[in-house]
Amino acid sequence: MKIALAQLNFHIGNFQYNTDKIIQYIQKAKVENVDLIIFPELSVCGYHPNDLLERKEFSVWCDKAVKIIVAECKGIAAIIGAPTINESQKGKKLRNSAIFINDGVIEKVVHKTLLPTYDIFDEYRHFEPNTEFGVVEFKGQKLAITICEDLWDDQPTNNSFSKSKLYITSPLEELSVFNPDLVINIAASPFSFNQEGNRKDIMLRNAQEYNVPIVYVNQVGAQTELIFDGGSMFINCNGNVEQEMAYFTEDFCTIDIDNLPEKLVQPNYSTIEKIYKALILGIRDYFVKMNFKKATLGLSGGIDSAIVAVLATEALGKENIHVLLMPSKFSSDHSIDDAKQLAENLGIKYDIVGIQPMVDQFEQALSPIFKGLTNDVTEENIQARTRGILLMAISNKFGNILLNTTNKSECAVGYGTLYGDMNGGLSVLGDVYKTDIFKLARFINRDVEIIPENTIIKPPSAELRPDQKDSDSLPDYDILDKILFRYIEMNQSPEEIINEGFDMAVVMKTVRMVNMNEYKRFQSPPILRISSKAFGFGRKMPLVARYEGF
Amino acid sequence: MKIALAQLNFHIGNFQYNTDKIIQYIQKAKVENVDLIIFPELSVCGYHPNDLLERKEFSVWCDKAVKIIVAECKGIAAIIGAPTINESQKGKKLRNSAIFINDGVIEKVVHKTLLPTYDIFDEYRHFEPNTEFGVVEFKGQKLAITICEDLWDDQPTNNSFSKSKLYITSPLEELSVFNPDLVINIAASPFSFNQEGNRKDIMLRNAQEYNVPIVYVNQVGAQTELIFDGGSMFINCNGNVEQEMAYFTEDFCTIDIDNLPEKLVQPNYSTIEKIYKALILGIRDYFVKMNFKKATLGLSGGIDSAIVAVLATEALGKENIHVLLMPSKFSSDHSIDDAKQLAENLGIKYDIVGIQPMVDQFEQALSPIFKGLTNDVTEENIQARTRGILLMAISNKFGNILLNTTNKSECAVGYGTLYGDMNGGLSVLGDVYKTDIFKLARFINRDVEIIPENTIIKPPSAELRPDQKDSDSLPDYDILDKILFRYIEMNQSPEEIINEGFDMAVVMKTVRMVNMNEYKRFQSPPILRISSKAFGFGRKMPLVARYEGF
Repeated sequence: MKIALAQLNFHIGNFQYNTDKIIQYIQKAKVENVDLIIFPELSVCGYHPNDLLERKEFSVWCDKAVKIIVAECKGIAAIIGAPTINESQKGKKLRNSAIFINDGVIEKVVHKTLLPTYDIFDEYRHFEPNTEFGVVEFKGQKLAITICEDLWDDQPTNNSFSKSKLYITSPLEELSVFNPDLVINIAASPFSFNQEGNRKDIMLRNAQEYNVPIVYVNQVGAQTELIFDGGSMFINCNGNVEQEMAYFTEDFCTIDIDNLPEKLVQPNYSTIEKIYKALILGIRDYFVKMNFKKATLGLSGGIDSAIVAVLATEALGKENIHVLLMPSKFSSDHSIDDAKQLAENLGIKYDIVGIQPMVDQFEQALSPIFKGLTNDVTEENIQARTRGILLMAISNKFGNILLNTTNKSECAVGYGTLYGDMNGGLSVLGDVYKTDIFKLARFINRDVEIIPENTIIKPPSAELRPDQKDSDSLPDYDILDKILFRYIEMNQSPEEIINEGFDMAVVMKTVRMVNMNEYKRFQSPPILRISSKAFGFGRKMPLVARYEGF
Repeated sequence: MKIALAQLNFHIGNFQYNTDKIIQYIQKAKVENVDLIIFPELSVCGYHPNDLLERKEFSVWCDKAVKIIVAECKGIAAIIGAPTINESQKGKKLRNSAIFINDGVIEKVVHKTLLPTYDIFDEYRHFEPNTEFGVVEFKGQKLAITICEDLWDDQPTNNSFSKSKLYITSPLEELSVFNPDLVINIAASPFSFNQEGNRKDIMLRNAQEYNVPIVYVNQVGAQTELIFDGGSMFINCNGNVEQEMAYFTEDFCTIDIDNLPEKLVQPNYSTIEKIYKALILGIRDYFVKMNFKKATLGLSGGIDSAIVAVLATEALGKENIHVLLMPSKFSSDHSIDDAKQLAENLGIKYDIVGIQPMVDQFEQALSPIFKGLTNDVTEENIQARTRGILLMAISNKFGNILLNTTNKSECAVGYGTLYGDMNGGLSVLGDVYKTDIFKLARFINRDVEIIPENTIIKPPSAELRPDQKDSDSLPDYDILDKILFRYIEMNQSPEEIINEGFDMAVVMKTVRMVNMNEYKRFQSPPILRISSKAFGFGRKMPLVARYEGF
């Protein structure tokens, strides 16, 4: 049996685009004499449509698209992912389904059993889980069709205090009684740099435990925050990866499972290189799918904006980037020089607009009200917000989308100005800790100095008052990031973090800053997600809560 | 048996406060010879802690608080709501529980069966549903203890295209086999002006169907967006409300169920009066629970900011409000006069800061870049954003939290400036359509003219260019709001709306504006929720989706 794996990039709700792409690959597969072509989870509508699933017209469009695709499957079999109607009079009205089409007819519709409802996942909101199991007979083979999380029955509970299992059912255990010859898993599994091993481990364990080969077909491409990395696989029944598809790009391959081709595995990219590729894909897909072309950002001479400029240039092309350098009286000379040098290295358009005249005018206008009061964070924020207005003016006038340059460490502790440097259509680095920012800079400069060395080595500063340094008000980033990772990604309690040897005062200060700044993050732009716990809709914290984390 | 209903206002995560309050009412109940005192759902930790439930220390605090409360229950019985650990090795690690305490001992822990996972609800994310049913024997009576949604087994699916039931299980049907003498429902049920009848109907239907009296104890108070309205009830087995508690305020009552007191029902407030009370409670609780005292906002002379000023004054006291009047060259004289008059009517502090000097400075600074280009929305946004900076400066300098004044109609169609008039810590009117804004103004002025008549009757305008009117770019609000309500609250398709007789071009323009502006709403402040479908976390729309809604 010859199988094709179609690891493609879909667009939520863009039925014309998704259907055309699916049909194009079905035709390609026919030419290559493929028996069965497999597309990822929810390929027809893109992952995840969320509350569009509550709308009648959305279901109608899904059904129409499926019908068009089914008609194209004369002489071939295909598995596509789509929401389908739950015909029962009770329970949620939709299923997350894999539709098995053979020779122009839907032969079987398999529904997802395990519906993830943690972190960024929210599938139980819309879908009724499957409770019936069976295999599909095709060309003398018994196929066990599963959908993404169905193979993750071992998933631990999302509580930090428990090692028990999240799920009660094991779909593969249920399916194993039918002695399947092949397990097929269609997926929409997003990238997390700190969980990259998990996915492969799960596949290998399942293949070995049930002594069955697995075909895993993942989505690729970004949908706002979520970056799907691809890496589809064929694993033999000994748990060895026989074929591994590309990461962060569309890919297509055919496998004769009775006569396997030469083993193919992907080069072992470093974690930083994966993050780099993920962020570029995230930027590019946001622009393509929103129908935007051009970006803007403020270049401060600092490392964060430098990296965003590099990534944006790579993603969108240098002709589509227009940056502003916006010095104030607190900006050091080298900041402007470094920023100019970077813009010249990248070949991107830049303008210099000093902010002092506007800042002075604001301070003058407010002086009757602020009479007798000393300067404080108010005046610092006026500078950041003046820059925000200038960048948004470029955005409004020329249609360049503003990219936000806040990093995860800053975002966590609230070291940023709402309506100032927190502005933007997309946060590129909001899930990248400052310590990884430095690694990204080194990776970018691995062959040529693109980011000026001075930008990398100088002490981080917001330059909003004389001689300001981040380290005036924050712990050193190498300590801060370790505490943040334990508190945010690992859900450790402050007590546990202190018990690991971190200074109590620093831990408590950090935790308080994280907790106190939920209100700022609430208004943050969408953040490209590269970790297992990004700020945004995968981390739901109540705003009015009062707790110290201890 | 003498029962006490403790309809109280809790604070998420504030265990000291919640525990003290619960104990205070237990002591009060003891003095009044109460047999059983009933507190609302998740009373120990507040509703809803969301992902705080993933943290070990949060569970530890819950358990500690429960132990302290249990010890206070010598000589009395109590039902409190708290998350409890699911001891099974599989499934989610927590339960949403009602703890039945009798004479200082936990006699029974009942878990919630139906976990709402639609709109603002997300309980299946954290809780494992109950599957076992039984009653509690107390003083010779069989009590069927249920938690909020457990009585809503009739809930329709959240899809607009289906009339089928969302739930497969009916807890009351399961419990009815034990012939309970009394059904107790502890709840955290938020206010929706367009579903106010539902809750009572559900209770009455259940009482009649199972021929059993029901005690319903709801939370009161706001937790950021969600406003819990109270209105706890005792319903006899004929489905008649015998006792109804206050709305939008804490309340406590005792009922001898063998010897019912005189019938008590609440005055029948108009919908607008309820919305008025809900918004005031929403503002007040946001400030109290965030530990804020003072507010600021911009008074434009228009109706939206006028209403926010009135509500904030009522909620926080006139001494805590400091507003800015920020005229530009496009502001009409009457705008300033109307705003001044309102501030004087309310007795609140105001300052006048003209924005023209800053706006001119921005335009001058940008002129080399914008050379040869005509004015457009860019220059309008610079005005709105300059006002945003001034208001945030007041907020930063004096600690006055900025209240956002955007209404739901504007928010829906994106008629507002990000980082300008969309700024604020809390959106007061983001769930109130413009047509209801006018009704609120009339309600506020019912006895005395607080809001100047001219503010109410003049055509709505953003005053960002000469002679601008909202009606230049938007349909009339009475048409617009009807279309929006059908599209947003009712999930009707554009086709259905057109079939109801609305103009096709207007419907399609409106729907496109709603869909295109998800990105703006993504960065909106939290919005006080008063309808059945507010913008915010109860309406999850993908940003990169491309669809026309037709």
